Formats: sequence, structure tokens, C-alpha cells
Amino acid sequence: MRDADEFSITRAVIERFADTPDPRLKQLVTSLVTHLHAFVREVEPSFAEWRAGIEFLTRTGQICDAHRQEFILLSDTLGVSMLVDAINHRMPEGTTETTVLGPFYVEAAPEHPNGADIAGGLAGEPLLVTGTVAGADGAPLPGAVVDVWHADDDGHYDVQQLEALGGLAGRARFRADAAGRFHFWSINPKHYPIPADGPVGEMLAATNRHPNRPAHVHFMIAAPGHETLVTHVFAQDSPYLDSDAVFGVKTSLIAPFADAPAGTAPDGRRMETPYRHLDYRFGLKAAAPRA
Amino acid sequence: MRDADEFSITRAVIERFADTPDPRLKQLVTSLVTHLHAFVREVEPSFAEWRAGIEFLTRTGQICDAHRQEFILLSDTLGVSMLVDAINHRMPEGTTETTVLGPFYVEAAPEHPNGADIAGGLAGEPLLVTGTVAGADGAPLPGAVVDVWHADDDGHYDVQQLEALGGLAGRARFRADAAGRFHFWSINPKHYPIPADGPVGEMLAATNRHPNRPAHVHFMIAAPGHETLVTHVFAQDSPYLDSDAVFGVKTSLIAPFADAPAGTAPDGRRMETPYRHLDYRFGLKAAAPRA
Ligand SMILES: [Fe+2]
Ligand SMILES: [Fe+2]
Repeated sequence: MRDADEFSITRAVIERFADTPDPRLKQLVTSLVTHLHAFVREVEPSFAEWRAGIEFLTRTGQICDAHRQEFILLSDTLGVSMLVDAINHRMPEGTTETTVLGPFYVEAAPEHPNGADIAGGLAGEPLLVTGTVAGADGAPLPGAVVDVWHADDDGHYDVQQLEALGGLAGRARFRADAAGRFHFWSINPKHYPIPADGPVGEMLAATNRHPNRPAHVHFMIAAPGHETLVTHVFAQDSPYLDSDAVFGVKTSLIAPFADAPAGTAPDGRRMETPYRHLDYRFGLKAAAPRA
Repeated sequence: MRDADEFSITRAVIERFADTPDPRLKQLVTSLVTHLHAFVREVEPSFAEWRAGIEFLTRTGQICDAHRQEFILLSDTLGVSMLVDAINHRMPEGTTETTVLGPFYVEAAPEHPNGADIAGGLAGEPLLVTGTVAGADGAPLPGAVVDVWHADDDGHYDVQQLEALGGLAGRARFRADAAGRFHFWSINPKHYPIPADGPVGEMLAATNRHPNRPAHVHFMIAAPGHETLVTHVFAQDSPYLDSDAVFGVKTSLIAPFADAPAGTAPDGRRMETPYRHLDYRFGLKAAAPRA
């Protein structure tokens, strides 16, 4: 293959991948080259624009570390993460819609008993979260493992301020009881900007986009025989519900974080101050049978 | 915008870029989102595949340093660099075809007088390079600045072995004389693999592609009133002319690195051993008039 010109080069590159042993990998690279070349052919980048693209991608990789994943932010802000999510979760009736995992999930969150207060020193309005985990048929799923994590009153996650907090906070793992119920106390999270001091922040600024996400609590819920559910529940009174920077909002995931007066809370806790209460029912999709 | 599904999300993301002030940037991001989403929709990546893509891009950024640009390698090996090159160089008759810059260009190469030997301690068969720089009309371009760089007999560039060499070698800048001629001595470069110990090397290995480029000398030639020419001349007897890992070979850029016997060379140098001789005529395209 010599003399590839601007029209023949796409076929030449695809032919070069002809001997890829894994058919799925071959499909992926063939499609990638086709669409990447179509993009280049459509916009006809100058050499300086190509170079700016190379540098943007390089800086995006180089700002990543153990607590920051800028390529996930880029995928999120370009709507790719939600598109991948939608493709992988064509959900049946009775199940909860999914949304992005986000960059702040931690694998080994501490397990707490139901009713625990996981605020861990985060300041903010108290929040009671009560929930039910069931299958699509409504039957409860006792023992379901419920990971939760959320931002604080300033819109920061624990992993963004580990030194100040001295450890994880606003993050825990619970187990649903015999009725599929779980509950815990924390503080009411606020809307927040995704990290905007890197290449993705530059992209948002250059395109007049704000970096904010509406207030939400993350949930990851696992139960035997079911697909693990990754989702958020969004606060009904939050700003940015209609312009989430990562396109993650679904109407079915918006719920009241309802004002509740001081007094005895539904779980028997005596509250001296008003608090918020979120109650949500999660429906898990049955796992596909093993082939 | 809420409830973007796998079909509506592309329009939702494009609408989010509606207020981009720079119309060219708006065109670029709109086209990028369109083609990136089309790719995702076509291949329907699993979450694990999406994650593998994120990690591949992250590692590609993180292996970059002052002497390594893995995203350029990725662009090169996916044919994107040559496509950008082709789009930006629709060359008229009488001009030299272009090819990729490659990752081994150094901006401040040392200037040498014509006839200098720039081998700088690199071992290999002696090579005499003689050349002419002219406009598309054939008129010589005296004073044209000719940057050259090439690999050694083992296929490595000076910047890949700076400590061993103690400095740059096989790399210099010359000026064309009153007749548009330049000449220098060095050693005959060999074919070489692009750096294959990183993510791009993994991609090539996983797709059964070899990483090799046919033997060549790089040229960057600048003259007032003309577009700067970035190209290679490839050795006619090299392997890999038909399977250059970066798709850079054009028939017009292949020339004999001809065997020459010991004796008096064309520039008067007395050679005790046989050597190679490359002679090439470069034609530069006139710059577009300023608007
Ligand atoms: Fe979040
Ligand atoms: Fe090269």
C-alpha cells in the first residue's frame, strides 16, 4: 500500500487491520477508523488544529491520577458515557433507570448497619434516606448490597478533601433487610461543578457551557441473580436538572428530598432540627441466564 | 434537557454546544460529537470495553514526555496524520509530495555548512545526500533552509539515545546555495519500528500489525514566499515500503540510495570505502497570497 490519498487512505488503514485475530477487536478498530476519518474529512483540520487536538488529549491523560479521571469527565461531558449507559441498559418495566457511575466511586466503601449516620463530620442539613430494593416483579430482595455516595453541602466529595476529613465520609455500604429495606442518615448534598481546572474545564469554558451537576445521591445496588444497578437519585428542588453537565438526568430519577420538621423521624430517631427525607424504590433487572 | 435516550442524546449534546462563541470551534465539537456518537452507536461497547478505551487513552497520555508523543504515534498508526497531511497539501505539478512530520523532529537543530558530515559518531555505511530546492516553476530557491534528520543503522534516532551519543547526531540544518543546491554526509539510515513498548505497540500487537517504517531521511524545507515542505525521501531498497506502519509512503518520494564505489565523491571528498548516494530535487509550493 503506497500513495494513499485523502480518499483512499481510510480503506488502506482498514485493510491493515485485516489480520486482527479477535473479531470483536477487528470490528471496533474498523468502525473507529471509519468514523474518525469521517470526522477529519468533514472538518478538514489545519495542522495547527490537529496539533491542538494532540495536545488536548495528552494533557487530558497527564492530569489523571488515583483520584482524578479526566478522560471519564471528557466522555461524560460529550454525552458518550450516557450513550454507553443507554445502550447497555435497555430496562424493562418495573426497574430503575440507570445513569453514569461518575469519577467518585470507591470500591471498598465501609459497611454500616441500617440506620447509621455516615455524615462523618460533613456539615450540612441532615438527610434521612429510606429505600426498598425489589425485582422487576416487585418482590423484595433481602440482603441486596447498597453502595451509596454523595457530595457535601459545598458540592465536594470526600475523596476531594481526604486530608481535611481524615477519611471517607458521605459514603458507605448497607444491606437490605428481610423486607428489602435499607435506611441511613447523612447530610443533604448540593449541586456541584465537575472538576473544571483541567482540559475538560477549558473545553466547557471555550464553548460557554457550565460545569454543574444537579444535587444527587449515587447508588450502586447488587443482588444475586440481578444486574447490578448503577444510578443516582436527583433532588427535585435542585438547580441544573435541565442542564446537567454530563447529561445524566432522567425524570424517573428525580425525587423529593422532602422537608421534615423536628421531632421523631420515621426510624425513631429524635431530631432536634428540621431535616430532609428521601424515600425511593429501586427495581433491579433480572440477570440474563448464563449461556 | 432530561431523559436523553440512546437516540436523542446526540442532538441533546450538540444543542448544549449552541452558545460556543467561536464558529470554527462550534463546527469542530458538533462534528466530533456526531461522529463519536455514531461510532459508539455502531459498535455498542460494553461497559468493560468503554472502560478499556478510557484506560487506553489515559495510558497514551501518561507515557508522553519531552521525547515521546504517543498520541502522535496513535494518530500516525490510525492513518489520521496522513489524512490531515493530504487535506492540507493538495499539491500542484512541480512540487514535492508531503508526508508526516513524525515524532522525532527537533526545533533547534544545529546549522552546518554544506558538505559537513553530520554522522556525529553514528556507525553505519557512509551516505552522501545532494539536493536541489526549487519552486514549482523550476527556478532555484537560494538560501532555502533545509532541516534534515534520520535514524541510524540500528533504526534509532539521536533523541532516543542522547545519553549514549552525548548530543544530537544525524540531524542538522543547511542552507541552499545560489543554485538552490545543498549537500551533506551522514550514514545510511535503516528501517525501524516506531516505539512499540506503549499503548500504541499494544494496539499493533493485538491487531497483528508490525510497527516498522521503511528507511528514510526526513526533510523540512523553508523558503520565503513558499509553503514549508515537510516530507521524507524513502530508500528504494528498503523493506516495508508497501506496509509503512504510519501510511507515509508515496511513490514519488522513493529514490535510490545508490551504491557508489570508493574514490572521489561528487563533492570532491576522497572516500576509502564504498558509500551510498541520494540525490533528490525538491519543489516547493508558492504560499497563498495574504488576504
Ligand atoms: Fe456525583
Ligand atoms: Fe522517521
